[in-house]
Amino acid sequence: MHPHLLSVDSLTRDSVDRLMHVAARMEPIASRRQVTRVLEGAVLGNLFFEASTRTRVSFNAAFCRLGGSVCDTTGFTFSSMAKGESLYDTSRVMSGYCDAIVMRHPDQGSVAEFAAATHVPVINGGDGPGEHPSQALLDFYTIDKEFNRLGKHLGNAHVLLTGDLKYGRTVHSLFKLLSLYDPMRFTLVAPPGLEMPAALIELVASRGHRVEERSSLADDYTDVDVIYTTRIQKERFTAEMSEGFSLSRDFTVDRTFLDRRCARDTIVMHPLPRDSRPDANDLDVDLNGDSRLAIFRQTDNGIPVRMAIFATLLQVDDLIEKDLRPVRWFVPPRVGIDDPQL
Amino acid sequence: MHPHLLSVDSLTRDSVDRLMHVAARMEPIASRRQVTRVLEGAVLGNLFFEASTRTRVSFNAAFCRLGGSVCDTTGFTFSSMAKGESLYDTSRVMSGYCDAIVMRHPDQGSVAEFAAATHVPVINGGDGPGEHPSQALLDFYTIDKEFNRLGKHLGNAHVLLTGDLKYGRTVHSLFKLLSLYDPMRFTLVAPPGLEMPAALIELVASRGHRVEERSSLADDYTDVDVIYTTRIQKERFTAEMSEGFSLSRDFTVDRTFLDRRCARDTIVMHPLPRDSRPDANDLDVDLNGDSRLAIFRQTDNGIPVRMAIFATLLQVDDLIEKDLRPVRWFVPPRVGIDDPQL
Amino acid sequence: MHPHLLSVDSLTRDSVDRLMHVAARMEPIASRRQVTRVLEGAVLGNLFFEASTRTRVSFNAAFCRLGGSVCDTTGFTFSSMAKGESLYDTSRVMSGYCDAIVMRHPDQGSVAEFAAATHVPVINGGDGPGEHPSQALLDFYTIDKEFNRLGKHLGNAHVLLTGDLKYGRTVHSLFKLLSLYDPMRFTLVAPPGLEMPAALIELVASRGHRVEERSSLADDYTDVDVIYTTRIQKERFTAEMSEGFSLSRDFTVDRTFLDRRCARDTIVMHPLPRDSRPDANDLDVDLNGDSRLAIFRQTDNGIPVRMAIFATLLQVDDLIEKDLRPVRWFVPPRVGIDDPQL
Repeated sequence: MHPHLLSVDSLTRDSVDRLMHVAARMEPIASRRQVTRVLEGAVLGNLFFEASTRTRVSFNAAFCRLGGSVCDTTGFTFSSMAKGESLYDTSRVMSGYCDAIVMRHPDQGSVAEFAAATHVPVINGGDGPGEHPSQALLDFYTIDKEFNRLGKHLGNAHVLLTGDLKYGRTVHSLFKLLSLYDPMRFTLVAPPGLEMPAALIELVASRGHRVEERSSLADDYTDVDVIYTTRIQKERFTAEMSEGFSLSRDFTVDRTFLDRRCARDTIVMHPLPRDSRPDANDLDVDLNGDSRLAIFRQTDNGIPVRMAIFATLLQVDDLIEKDLRPVRWFVPPRVGIDDPQL
Repeated sequence: MHPHLLSVDSLTRDSVDRLMHVAARMEPIASRRQVTRVLEGAVLGNLFFEASTRTRVSFNAAFCRLGGSVCDTTGFTFSSMAKGESLYDTSRVMSGYCDAIVMRHPDQGSVAEFAAATHVPVINGGDGPGEHPSQALLDFYTIDKEFNRLGKHLGNAHVLLTGDLKYGRTVHSLFKLLSLYDPMRFTLVAPPGLEMPAALIELVASRGHRVEERSSLADDYTDVDVIYTTRIQKERFTAEMSEGFSLSRDFTVDRTFLDRRCARDTIVMHPLPRDSRPDANDLDVDLNGDSRLAIFRQTDNGIPVRMAIFATLLQVDDLIEKDLRPVRWFVPPRVGIDDPQL
Repeated sequence: MHPHLLSVDSLTRDSVDRLMHVAARMEPIASRRQVTRVLEGAVLGNLFFEASTRTRVSFNAAFCRLGGSVCDTTGFTFSSMAKGESLYDTSRVMSGYCDAIVMRHPDQGSVAEFAAATHVPVINGGDGPGEHPSQALLDFYTIDKEFNRLGKHLGNAHVLLTGDLKYGRTVHSLFKLLSLYDPMRFTLVAPPGLEMPAALIELVASRGHRVEERSSLADDYTDVDVIYTTRIQKERFTAEMSEGFSLSRDFTVDRTFLDRRCARDTIVMHPLPRDSRPDANDLDVDLNGDSRLAIFRQTDNGIPVRMAIFATLLQVDDLIEKDLRPVRWFVPPRVGIDDPQL
């Protein structure tokens, strides 16, 4: 792995496999059966120039679970940058304080520019329309783990990507990451105007995968293994798009869709947050408690995967097994009230 | 105790007694004579959707003193909720990251809704006009500790509650908590329009306590053991209330009032913050340094009480005594410059 | 040293020397070769009522490197002070939660007022136009360390202070701090209207130093050892000042100036942040990677110096050498991509 984690484009199948392997070894800590302090004394700079509580807390908690300390920064009002400080200076200064840096920023390319100034490991926590590699890695880890549980294999898997495939950053990254593996089948379902960029489809197809596009979920998907759904934001619709097109339930993944059109072991994923307001065009809440809904197992996986990223970049992954002790506090057998028994 | 701490209504005399007992055992750590690391590796999600620096830092410091790490979130702009995420989803996601969650939120009932989705212990850090149980518990702990020091007993105690008794959330909770104990006497003094709700008075009276209402502090209170005072916010006054009524010093607790009308060992409490501006209708600053002023001992008690809440919910209270070592850094004999020798 | 660190005015040559000595002993930890946990269990209140990410993170990281935990507070919206809470009350309350407090506040004198209410060590992290003593100490430490490297001595050193010398808080403090030492030579170069206050010049001259004022950098500075440059803010210019005066490159420190007018081992310092926008009247970026540019070594020095301040005030400086173990994670040989080999 490179000194930084900026984009899924820099990842090879080998480096992904290694990360997945390390993440699996983090499970006892992430699930709070064991404690490690291998990063005791290390400091993470968790720089969020754009609000994203979920991602920020996930990185923060992952670093803490390795024994480190975290300095958080939130909001657009990052004071010195408002005074004209360059990303170069900010990067060099923060690198003198911290052992690793997570950065989220609204401007595409800004995290790479930041990382170019430092030898301290930098992780891209999302740069606007750009990249968010740790999300793609946790999505991939989730598919891998669910497949293990269900006795399935990545090769020949059928993955349905649906929702806003044009602007959905996470769905692009996952698509690319999966394409590193043995040939599988992708079905892309998006409303007109929100289709997956052609260049991406071409790239994935060129790697030997079968990619089909459809314009509605009103179809048969009984052999689909994974449904990855994202929210369709009305704000994305131009006047032309809205005209002659109404967002019907044709793009909604819910219990009826799953029961009628999919298999018993089809799993449903979502990058979250999910918009649960009635008119949101997002994944339906009626699947809560259904074992096929993998979205909370997916977000839980953010901890072992981000721990693995830190442990790999900071080269402590081999030390952890020698530095474990049992958790002494109360840990509920299941975290969520509706978590299904698997 | 329940898995969560959401309201004083769920507390019994037994569960309060147990918490007070655990809090007393936290004193050596809270007063910085001993260090424990019993929660090393645990992560607290300290979610403040509403600003409250005092409460946030108090919970944060209490968790740190037990050896844990804290992920803070502040402000209304909690990003994913702004995007339509339900409390259910937020709760389930955060529960995958954290071992305990403190939540403050402006909407009554929101913390209970959040807690209903998770098995991870949730503590209500204040939900608007609703509940703030840790404040009530530290208030109760303060009375208990002060009474021990003064050789007094809760039974037959005379407690004066004054200020804004209609909207004062903390005074309602303390009133209910005290009513779980042996019969005592309450005197309620509020300006017209800001009286204690009748239902609450009825509840407390029905438990065998004597409750009297008066409309001014211009009276004799020589047998009062505790004065619990809260700020009267002018914003609460309707036009009608303001007419024909002027907030005189009749509702101000100050040195003259204490010297003339109360006993030598009457203690004065306040939930803080106190408005120290000249026209604030709040507890007077002329009592600073007076041993009867218990407000800073009261806020100090937030640490052992919140440590006790965490230790109880996370079931480590019995482990702490085996995990102590002496503090090695400088700790001043007294914290505040005006702290009286008791 | 006093119980607090509020101003450089309270520092003697002896107390500065002791702090520098402790800071030097912190280097193995600050440079991440060793780990200490001497402050394990201690809590820092890092109260920033004014945004200053750099300073906040520096104090935070320094406390973490000593093993302590940090409670951060940022922004003007410090909730209870908005409700009329006095600095006295805020100080006393926070002192019940924390073992040390760093405070930054826009109002001059506010940190001293805060510190007057508590026995818990308070460090002034900047009070508006007032003081920022830890910056002056890290500036001093930088000069001392660079001189050691270059085989130079403070006595007879020639220090050039340039930029906005009227409003530059850091330059005032450093000027005073250096004046505690053996006679040296100061040259002050500022645009008309932004000169160093006469009282300060008088004070320094009265301590036996030679102080000269010039109105431009277009001069010979071959014997200058240190150039301390600060940004000239256009906002500071009155209409009269702007008239008949244009900010030429006469006040810009860049590679050409250094090559043509200074010595080979002249070092360049800056309190940062540096405004790198084209029209900023600030230190030029063309010196990046040049070994004479000491600004990033200077900001790096914030960690050992702030560790030394904490260790001294909390009286653990003598314990640290007994509490060291090697860092186990990856630490890059050089932090910044352009850091020169020295």
